[in-house]
Parts: sequence; C-alpha cells; structure tokens
Amino acid sequence: MILEVAILNVRQGEEGNFEQDFKIASRYISAIKGYLNHSLKKCVETKNQYILLVNWKDIESHEIGFRKSKEYLKWKELLHHYYDPFPIVEHYETVFQNMK
Amino acid sequence: MILEVAILNVRQGEEGNFEQDFKIASRYISAIKGYLNHSLKKCVETKNQYILLVNWKDIESHEIGFRKSKEYLKWKELLHHYYDPFPIVEHYETVFQNMK
Repeated sequence: MILEVAILNVRQGEEGNFEQDFKIASRYISAIKGYLNHSLKKCVETKNQYILLVNWKDIESHEIGFRKSKEYLKWKELLHHYYDPFPIVEHYETVFQNMK
Repeated sequence: MILEVAILNVRQGEEGNFEQDFKIASRYISAIKGYLNHSLKKCVETKNQYILLVNWKDIESHEIGFRKSKEYLKWKELLHHYYDPFPIVEHYETVFQNMK
C-alpha cells in the first residue's frame, strides 16, 4: 500500500468553490482500479492550505492507472486551476504504525 | 479529530537509527491523553524524507497535553537530533473523506 501526499495551496477566496469541486472530482479518482481511499483535510494554521491523502494499492495504480485515464482529465479540469503554486506530489510507504 | 502532519528530513545515513528510535519514542506519544493513533511513512522519491501523521482528539491534546509532558522530553531527546532542517508541524481538519 502506498500513500500519495500533496500539500495544496488554493488561491485565496476560492476555498469554498474548491471544496465543492473536490467532492465532485472525488468520484473520478475513486473509480480507478487500485484506489483504496482518500481524504482532503484543511490546515488549521494556514487558511488556504489543504492536504490530499490517497491510499493506493501501488504507485502504478496512481501514476499509470489514474494519470493516464479519462477520469484524470475530468479531475484535472475541475481542480488544477485552483492551485498556486502547482503542488508537488509524493508517495510514502509505511515504516511504523500504531492504530490503537 | 485533528491530524498533525510533519514532513521530516533526516540526516543522510541516519535513516536506520532514526527508524529504530522512532519505534522506541512511539510509546511516549501514544501514552498521552487525547492521542488516537500515529504512523511514520518513508518517502519513495526522497530517500531521507518521512511523513509523521498523528491523529489527536483535539489540538490541545497535542500542543498542551503532549508538548508540556515529561513524555515529550523523552521523545525530543530520542528524535530531534535526526532532523535537518527542523520540521514545521501543522494541523489539519477533515473536509472530505471516502474510506470505501
């Protein structure tokens, strides 16, 4: 399992529209083979900053399965214009977890 | 529920020791009232980069309950010397999640 992480900086004043469009766009990412779950979280300290967390079966499900899909074109069209700067996306593997 | 997020850059070559000490340090954070769960994940793209994710009942459990505790002194002693630069810690609230 791989966690995709992106810190998203949304143009100021567009947070409400972004959150609405994110909910719509969620149907596209969650339709992809190898997608496990995702969440969007809003930063307490920085009003227009968010974090996107997506669990994938493996990196290929994200980088090939999603990014080369027609669903990605819809995701991109709905969301990419909100970001400034454009986010860096990274992938993480679990080293340790305590889910008590 | 609040997610604490910190991107950790560990001094190169010290990743193995850091991971071991993180496991030891985990007992201190998980003993705090309001702590829910946590994980440490390793970046696929950048060898010495990690992400720490901690779920807390609320921000106070982290900022007061943990940071003013004697457990924090042990956590700090075990881990802080590995970081360069010293990490920025932020808190996030859930806007949307799909845990299918």
